[in-house]
Amino acid sequence: MAKDYSSIVVSSRVRLSRCLNDVPFPAKMDELTGKKVVRKVYNAIDGEDDFGLYVMKDLPRDEAYIMQEKHLISHDLIENSQSGAVMINQDETISIMINEEDHIREQCLMSGLCLEQAYQKLNKIDQQICKKIDIAFDQNLGFLTSCITNVGTGLRVSVMLFLPALTLTKKIDSIIGNLTKNGLAVRGAYGEATDYLGYLYQISNERTIGKSEEDYIRQINSIIIQICDMEIDARKQLLLTRETEVKDVVGRAYGVLTNCYLLPVEEFMRLAGEIKMGIALNLVRMKDNHIVDKLLATLAPYTLCKLAGNVSTMQEEQKFRAEYVAKVLKSNRIK
Amino acid sequence: MAKDYSSIVVSSRVRLSRCLNDVPFPAKMDELTGKKVVRKVYNAIDGEDDFGLYVMKDLPRDEAYIMQEKHLISHDLIENSQSGAVMINQDETISIMINEEDHIREQCLMSGLCLEQAYQKLNKIDQQICKKIDIAFDQNLGFLTSCITNVGTGLRVSVMLFLPALTLTKKIDSIIGNLTKNGLAVRGAYGEATDYLGYLYQISNERTIGKSEEDYIRQINSIIIQICDMEIDARKQLLLTRETEVKDVVGRAYGVLTNCYLLPVEEFMRLAGEIKMGIALNLVRMKDNHIVDKLLATLAPYTLCKLAGNVSTMQEEQKFRAEYVAKVLKSNRIK
Repeated sequence: MAKDYSSIVVSSRVRLSRCLNDVPFPAKMDELTGKKVVRKVYNAIDGEDDFGLYVMKDLPRDEAYIMQEKHLISHDLIENSQSGAVMINQDETISIMINEEDHIREQCLMSGLCLEQAYQKLNKIDQQICKKIDIAFDQNLGFLTSCITNVGTGLRVSVMLFLPALTLTKKIDSIIGNLTKNGLAVRGAYGEATDYLGYLYQISNERTIGKSEEDYIRQINSIIIQICDMEIDARKQLLLTRETEVKDVVGRAYGVLTNCYLLPVEEFMRLAGEIKMGIALNLVRMKDNHIVDKLLATLAPYTLCKLAGNVSTMQEEQKFRAEYVAKVLKSNRIK
Repeated sequence: MAKDYSSIVVSSRVRLSRCLNDVPFPAKMDELTGKKVVRKVYNAIDGEDDFGLYVMKDLPRDEAYIMQEKHLISHDLIENSQSGAVMINQDETISIMINEEDHIREQCLMSGLCLEQAYQKLNKIDQQICKKIDIAFDQNLGFLTSCITNVGTGLRVSVMLFLPALTLTKKIDSIIGNLTKNGLAVRGAYGEATDYLGYLYQISNERTIGKSEEDYIRQINSIIIQICDMEIDARKQLLLTRETEVKDVVGRAYGVLTNCYLLPVEEFMRLAGEIKMGIALNLVRMKDNHIVDKLLATLAPYTLCKLAGNVSTMQEEQKFRAEYVAKVLKSNRIK
């Protein structure tokens, strides 16, 4: 039976970059051509999965930022695309950005460790697209993309890992060193600036050429499993050698989150990671083991503002977040 | 009717320095002479207030540090005195250090604002001492002491103030500037290094010569009352303009203190100040409004170790403090 990595692997993500033959790359493309690309992609996807199409120019900015907070679109699509659009399926596992850096960026994002499943799901969509659209492909190089780093498979595989024990035991540093040497990139969950906030690490392939899609996925999957097993060992060791310190970190996070009146988003992410660690180590018991991930998704700034309705200042946002988190955590806790 | 300053003035302290005529100052004195001084002082105090005599050399170090934590003796008396001793009365309001910097340092320390009462109480003891012992006194200069800064009255008056609102509104800086210009010293409660930890400020006279004891006390008393009235105004202003921020600070302090597993003493002092602010502003309601001061007294490092019994490491000390504080605060809180 496969081991349970659900308290370690947050999500799996597969992305494919495609460009159209005989159409200038998006950076060099005029608006009219961009609109034609959108129509082509829209028409290529048949209705079986009920995709919605959102043209960025017509989309309220708040809605766009909510999509970004859900990792469905990139910041670049919002800010730097003249004729950007996105197609999103019903359950929001698949999004197809149009006219971002490449004409087409297909993505499948799912919870837990399921790279192969995500790839198969995305591959179906990709086959439809490649069948109906004339995609730039070179017999020797493979798929051609705007940026040379994506040429070949156009595949980017990334896994979001929650690694509190490897972080606290400082073993993470040598792991990151090894991954980097082996052509993998490691980033924080919320971009570079925030480091590894919330004990979250996003691991992805740097190279996209030289192996098949299936080989890339197999390789990354096996590396992720190794890291997960190391995290499991580190968690046991942490509880054996530093239980009181860990309980202290978790207790303080719970204390602040259930008693503060103003909660900035970055602090929330940090403390949420500490509570998640408490749940993973069975030091805090919750009715729903994924309550923290749900809170993180619900209380990202723009998602929160939509939920709250009448939030206009930073202080109001922080106040709503504080009240919401306190209420949910208190009612979810099993004493 | 006098205003209630009990949530502002923590304690009042009066100290008198005296030296014996024809005996070298303690720094220049041999051990035998030191012992004679102890006996003289001991004999001068008649038994009405039931003073205990403690000779530092014979006192377990832990007991000595507990006395220091209670502000009954100085660090110098423990570390730098060859023949140091102290006499302490039953309710621990009066302590008489023998062979510290001066041969005799009488102190009266009481809760709240009561400088005159404290002085009168101490003066009674001082009159006994001056009647029975040949004290160094100069007709022009007054009492003669080891250090020139105490010559004259030998009087040091100090008041410990709890000033969260003047601190948070930053008005305290100009107040400190004014006090310093007027010959008063301002220190943190726990020595220089810790700044004004816990919003505590100790205000005392720098000069000891030029006025009578009564005049010094009247002057400082009137200045303290002015500061108290400013703090009362600042508290009102703080609640009007920054209520949520203040509630956030207080809530976080309560959250950490009732949920942490390790609590270092310095952090405790800081958070205790924040809870005290919450009680003073009626944002947190406690059965006993002085519960925080009691905890601070109980959980100073050596006092805690005696109470806990079997604490030997720093971590055990921090763990005991965390558990004790959480239990007391939770059971004392009125929801």
